[in-house]
Amino acid sequence: MKPLAPGSTIGILGGGQLGRMLSNAASELGFDVCIFTDEHDSPAARVSARTFVAPFDDRGALEEFARHVHVITTEFENVPAATAKALMDAGAHVRPHHHALAVAQDRFDEKSFFASTGIATPAFAAIANQADLDAAITEIGAPSILKTRRFGYDGRGQIRVMSPADAEAAFDKLGAPGILEAFCPFEREVSIICARSQDGQVAFYDLCENEHKNGILSRTVVPSRANAATNVAARAAAQRVLEAFGYIGVLTIEFFVMPDGALIANEMAPRVHNSGHWTIEGALTSQFEQHIRAVAGWPLGPTTRVGDIEMSNLIGADAEEWSELAADPSARLHLYGKRDSRDGRKMGHVTRLRLRED
Amino acid sequence: MKPLAPGSTIGILGGGQLGRMLSNAASELGFDVCIFTDEHDSPAARVSARTFVAPFDDRGALEEFARHVHVITTEFENVPAATAKALMDAGAHVRPHHHALAVAQDRFDEKSFFASTGIATPAFAAIANQADLDAAITEIGAPSILKTRRFGYDGRGQIRVMSPADAEAAFDKLGAPGILEAFCPFEREVSIICARSQDGQVAFYDLCENEHKNGILSRTVVPSRANAATNVAARAAAQRVLEAFGYIGVLTIEFFVMPDGALIANEMAPRVHNSGHWTIEGALTSQFEQHIRAVAGWPLGPTTRVGDIEMSNLIGADAEEWSELAADPSARLHLYGKRDSRDGRKMGHVTRLRLRED
Repeated sequence: MKPLAPGSTIGILGGGQLGRMLSNAASELGFDVCIFTDEHDSPAARVSARTFVAPFDDRGALEEFARHVHVITTEFENVPAATAKALMDAGAHVRPHHHALAVAQDRFDEKSFFASTGIATPAFAAIANQADLDAAITEIGAPSILKTRRFGYDGRGQIRVMSPADAEAAFDKLGAPGILEAFCPFEREVSIICARSQDGQVAFYDLCENEHKNGILSRTVVPSRANAATNVAARAAAQRVLEAFGYIGVLTIEFFVMPDGALIANEMAPRVHNSGHWTIEGALTSQFEQHIRAVAGWPLGPTTRVGDIEMSNLIGADAEEWSELAADPSARLHLYGKRDSRDGRKMGHVTRLRLRED
Repeated sequence: MKPLAPGSTIGILGGGQLGRMLSNAASELGFDVCIFTDEHDSPAARVSARTFVAPFDDRGALEEFARHVHVITTEFENVPAATAKALMDAGAHVRPHHHALAVAQDRFDEKSFFASTGIATPAFAAIANQADLDAAITEIGAPSILKTRRFGYDGRGQIRVMSPADAEAAFDKLGAPGILEAFCPFEREVSIICARSQDGQVAFYDLCENEHKNGILSRTVVPSRANAATNVAARAAAQRVLEAFGYIGVLTIEFFVMPDGALIANEMAPRVHNSGHWTIEGALTSQFEQHIRAVAGWPLGPTTRVGDIEMSNLIGADAEEWSELAADPSARLHLYGKRDSRDGRKMGHVTRLRLRED
């Protein structure tokens, strides 16, 4: 694909906060944005030139969307395979490639992919029935974690198996197809945000150290406490993933860091990521601009970090503190324009930046 | 006015690049934006939730706009007085106050206002007819500059008077009402971007040093070469202007710096300003976010600069270099989404940032 000239239209599947921040970044580069979402009055639609509101299986709407845009990307990984196929059949460039989307949608395929590229994962086994689970617990041991293969995020679709005696109840609750994963007694959790351009240029942001609460990212600190060898290993793993897919766009891998510094891959997201929101003010090129550059066929921008970072998510009622946060000079406040602050919903985030020499 | 809660709608008069960048900043704080413009397919409309396209004297459209939004601001100073009045009659909060808009629209009123607040200006005189001009040239001397009182920007509406013999031709060309201003043999041009909140909190960005070409801003460097006393004087002058108006929002004053460091006020803009575009990546709070904070009744954000800055405008065909600029890691590229790159039109800008310790 020729690099898209400014004034071209970038299509985004999904209307949430990631789409909103991608749309802002695209507009700073002179692009128009067209959103495709099944949600009315979505956060991304309100900052974009045009929006199609239709189900993701509405072939006619997808074809019209494909005709209206010059490239299509996504803000969520669970794009139905049939949706991606309909868009490609309509002649659209879809980035990242549907293969990367498909692998990231299935926890078993994802871990198998990591293993195939030489990246360590927790021991894991596919679970189709109760007998599979019993056998897997014997092999992998307990405690371990039973997860659905598909549609898990923010800690949903998983259950801890503390002993073989829990197996039946766990299987009854989650059903099949599933994956059993060994429990990792990790020291900390980190993520790497990386990007690859259509010309094969690769860029990495500094490793993010993440804390989760109730399965949802709560806080990211950069730089992480990981040692130099761990940083090098994370970049090497990320590069292998990007190249194995011939990936175009921003991609995120979450790792456990073990007490000896070894990295165990937990999951990946073929998109911009919550743990990279600090790059808006904390890096010369935000992850959102970086993703737009990549999918537009542009060269990547510099990922230089401008200071030390602490990013905190505003979950549910946290966002009701907007007035105090707006008055706090150490807090760069971001709110996503969601109408309704349900429990567990990501409403915004706050970035605190300590500049060099401060 | 109570501080606007996230989810409120901010109305912006004008659909150009300043509106586009204001809209992006508003969306990062969780606001919706509604644009009022007389231009179809405007840069700001394409990143905003809703747009009214109508003439600025369409009372019905203005009233509907006023009902739809929670506060109204502007991205250009030449808002017709009747437009501002119609909006206020419809019960809208218009920020900044129409008095500041009116003063900035008229070069004679503007210079008279500076003088009334104790801020030095070039010698000036109102010109209603040829006799006024002859008398003013006798008093002020030549070279001097004849300007229209209204609707001048980017060097338009002005003509140099090199000697009394030029007076008749100059008056024939520009007509009345005009203003004659003494020519200032300045050493450099600077601007100060400042802001005032509805609670009277005041903030300043570091002084910008500006170079113009053909009357249009070409390049801004921060920090400027102005000495400490000049910096202090610029802030003091800005504070007097903000307080004289009871101003709410971002305001810009352009000064000449004389060889002895003295400041002579050239003009002001009751809005965000091209010489402040570097604040997007160069300051903790951009001028756009700052303006949105102020008009929303929020406290101001920190103006801390993150490094040394050089901002270059992309005028007309300059923007055709987008591909080279996108590949230059030292250049943070901003394009405004204008369909048509006429000569002299501001198409985008590039910010180069040297971080501390680089």
